[in-house]
Amino acid sequence: MFSVTVRDHMMIAHSLRGEVFGPAQALHGATYVVDATFRSPTLDPNGIVVDIGRASELLHEVVGGLSYRNLDDEPELAGLNTTTEVLSRLVADRLAERITDGAFGDGGRPSTLMVTLHESHLASAGYERTL
Amino acid sequence: MFSVTVRDHMMIAHSLRGEVFGPAQALHGATYVVDATFRSPTLDPNGIVVDIGRASELLHEVVGGLSYRNLDDEPELAGLNTTTEVLSRLVADRLAERITDGAFGDGGRPSTLMVTLHESHLASAGYERTL
Amino acid sequence: MFSVTVRDHMMIAHSLRGEVFGPAQALHGATYVVDATFRSPTLDPNGIVVDIGRASELLHEVVGGLSYRNLDDEPELAGLNTTTEVLSRLVADRLAERITDGAFGDGGRPSTLMVTLHESHLASAGYERTL
Amino acid sequence: MFSVTVRDHMMIAHSLRGEVFGPAQALHGATYVVDATFRSPTLDPNGIVVDIGRASELLHEVVGGLSYRNLDDEPELAGLNTTTEVLSRLVADRLAERITDGAFGDGGRPSTLMVTLHESHLASAGYERTL
Amino acid sequence: MFSVTVRDHMMIAHSLRGEVFGPAQALHGATYVVDATFRSPTLDPNGIVVDIGRASELLHEVVGGLSYRNLDDEPELAGLNTTTEVLSRLVADRLAERITDGAFGDGGRPSTLMVTLHESHLASAGYERTL
Amino acid sequence: MFSVTVRDHMMIAHSLRGEVFGPAQALHGATYVVDATFRSPTLDPNGIVVDIGRASELLHEVVGGLSYRNLDDEPELAGLNTTTEVLSRLVADRLAERITDGAFGDGGRPSTLMVTLHESHLASAGYERTL
Repeated sequence: MFSVTVRDHMMIAHSLRGEVFGPAQALHGATYVVDATFRSPTLDPNGIVVDIGRASELLHEVVGGLSYRNLDDEPELAGLNTTTEVLSRLVADRLAERITDGAFGDGGRPSTLMVTLHESHLASAGYERTL
Repeated sequence: MFSVTVRDHMMIAHSLRGEVFGPAQALHGATYVVDATFRSPTLDPNGIVVDIGRASELLHEVVGGLSYRNLDDEPELAGLNTTTEVLSRLVADRLAERITDGAFGDGGRPSTLMVTLHESHLASAGYERTL
Repeated sequence: MFSVTVRDHMMIAHSLRGEVFGPAQALHGATYVVDATFRSPTLDPNGIVVDIGRASELLHEVVGGLSYRNLDDEPELAGLNTTTEVLSRLVADRLAERITDGAFGDGGRPSTLMVTLHESHLASAGYERTL
Repeated sequence: MFSVTVRDHMMIAHSLRGEVFGPAQALHGATYVVDATFRSPTLDPNGIVVDIGRASELLHEVVGGLSYRNLDDEPELAGLNTTTEVLSRLVADRLAERITDGAFGDGGRPSTLMVTLHESHLASAGYERTL
Repeated sequence: MFSVTVRDHMMIAHSLRGEVFGPAQALHGATYVVDATFRSPTLDPNGIVVDIGRASELLHEVVGGLSYRNLDDEPELAGLNTTTEVLSRLVADRLAERITDGAFGDGGRPSTLMVTLHESHLASAGYERTL
Repeated sequence: MFSVTVRDHMMIAHSLRGEVFGPAQALHGATYVVDATFRSPTLDPNGIVVDIGRASELLHEVVGGLSYRNLDDEPELAGLNTTTEVLSRLVADRLAERITDGAFGDGGRPSTLMVTLHESHLASAGYERTL
C-alpha cells in the first residue's frame, strides 16, 4: 500500500457544548496543523498516488475555507459540536467531495483518506474513510 | 474510523538482558515520550472518541506509575525484560484495565488502543490492542 | 551562560486590528505552544538555573491565566492588539513579575528570560528581556 | 501488534519525468528523512520485534547505497521515475531482501514493513508491504 | 528584543568542492527547511516586528528563486561553494536586499536577521546579520 | 555570524541530590537529545564553519563516552550533581578540549560553542562558552 501525506494549518475560534469540555465550553480558539494522507494500492503511470503539489493545493482550499473564522457563527456548521474529531471528519469529507468531483483529474485515485488535526504538541484527533 | 492521540513522558532507569543489546545490558536510562491513540468507529453524543483532557489524565496516571524509577528494582516488573516493545505493551495494558474499569465513565468507549514509546529522535516502538 | 527551557501551550480566540492583518482581522483563534527560556551565568548550589519542575508550574500558571478565553473580551487586555509579539511580551512580563515576587524562592535567579510563542508549524514570535 | 521504528536520511539529486511535476522536472534534489517500521504480532525471547541497533544499521546500509548520488545516473534505477512513492518502495524492497537473506539472524522476523520518506516539513510518502 | 520567525523550504541539487566533503563532492541534493528570524527592539504601531504573512511571502520569493534547480549550473552562483553556511548567507543577503528596497513598506524595520537552513533532522547551519 | 548545529543523543541513568528535585532524587534515567552549535564570524576556504560530518563524529565521541551508563557510578563524575545544566557544560567542555587539541585539524576554528540537552519534548537545558 502506498501513501502520500501533505500538511497545512488553520486558525479558528469556537466553543464546545457539553460539560465534559470544562473550560473549553467558553469561546476560545485553536491552530490545527492538518495532515492529509492519501493511500492507494497502486501507482499511476507517473509513479505517484497523487501529485504532492496538487494535493497540497486541495488541502489548502479546504482548510482555507475554515481558517480565520469563528466556527460558532458559520451557518454551514450550525448544530455541529466542532470537536477536533468532528473537524477531522469535516476536512476529510470536503476533500473526498472534491476528489469525487475530479480534483485530481485523470491522475491517481486514492482508495482511502486519513485526516489528522494536531491541536497542540500534546494532542491530536483524526478520521479515516474510504474514497 | 476516528482517533484521538495524547502525549506524555516518563524518565526511567533500567538494564536489558540479552547479548543482542550490547552496551544497553548495563544499567542506563531513557526518556520515553509516550503517545496513546484511542480509536473508535463512532463518536459519542458530545462528538468525541474520548475527552482529550480525561485521556491525558489517564495516560499521566499510568506513566506516572513508572517514571522516576529504576525498573530493575520494581517487584511488579520482576522477570520482565523492559524493552521499548515490552514497556509499550505494559502501558497499553494498564490503560486498557482502567478503561475496562470505567475510567472514561459513560463517555466514549474506544475499540482499539495504540501506544508508542519514542526513546530518542531516531527510534520508537509501539503496541496496538483491542479494548 | 546556562539556560533552561520549558514548554506549555494555550488556546485562545482573538481578532487583530489593522489592515495589515487581512483575514486575521476577523475573530479567529490560535494554539500557542509557548517556550520560556531562563538564562543565568552561574548555577545555584544544586547545579541548576531554576528547577525545571518549578519553572514548568510557573509557566503553566501564566499561560493558564490566558487559555480558553476570547482575548478580545478580557478587561485587562483592553486596548492591546494581541499579536504574537505582544502576547510573547505579556507572558514574559507576567513570568518576570512572579520571579521578582519570589516564585523561585531562594533558588536560582535567572538574569534574562526569553519567551517564544509558536502559532503554527510555520511561524512564531518571541520577546527577550532582563530580570 | 508490536512495532519498531528507526530513522535515517539520504541526500540525493534527481529529476522527475511527467508534466504533472512542473518545476520538479528539472534536475533538483532532496533530503529524505526515512522512517522504517517493522511490525510483528509477537516478540522474540529477548522481548523485541527486531533489535533497534541492528535495524538502524540495516536501514543505514540501504539508504547509504542511495545517498550522495544523482539518481538519474544510477544504472540500477534506469527507467524508474524516482518519485517519493517509488523511492519508498525501493527502500522497503531492499530492506525486505536483506531480511529474507537473514539480516536479523535468528532474531525477530517482522511480518510487515512500512517505509516513509519525509521530503520536507510539509510532505512525505510511504510504502507498506509484507515480509 | 522582539523576534518573528517564518519557515519555508527549497529542494536543490549541487556538489561541494573540497576533500573535506568526502562523498558530498559528487552531485547530490538536499531539502533545506529554511527559518528566517527578524529581530527588532521595538514594535510598530500595529504591535508587530513585521507582518508574518508578508514575511512568509518574502521568504517564499527568495527560496523560490533557488528551489528546483541544480545550483552547480546557476550562473549567479558561479564560483560559490554552496555549503549550508554559504546558502544561509545567500538567503539572508537576498532577504536583506529586499527589505532595504522596501519589501516591508512603512511597516516594522527589523534590526537583525537570522537565517537557518536545516539540511536533515540531524544538521543545520545559519547566518546572522544586521539590516 | 555563522553557525553549524549537529544532533546526537545519549541514554543514561542517574539520581539528583537536593530536595528541590522531588521524585528525581531516586535513581531514574533520561534520553538526552544533544544539539551542539559551533559559531564563527568567518568561513574557512571551503566555505564552512566546521565540517558537519567531522562535527557529528566529534559529538558522537563525546556523548558515546557517557551513554549507556549509570552516571552515579562514574568515578570521573564523582561529586557532580548531574543536572541537565551540569551535563550540558560537561559535554561542551569535552568538545572544547578536543577542539583545542586539534579535532578540526587545520579547518575552521569556531569562536563559541553552545550545547543543548533536550530531556523530553517539554524541557531542555544548555550551556554556551567561548573556544
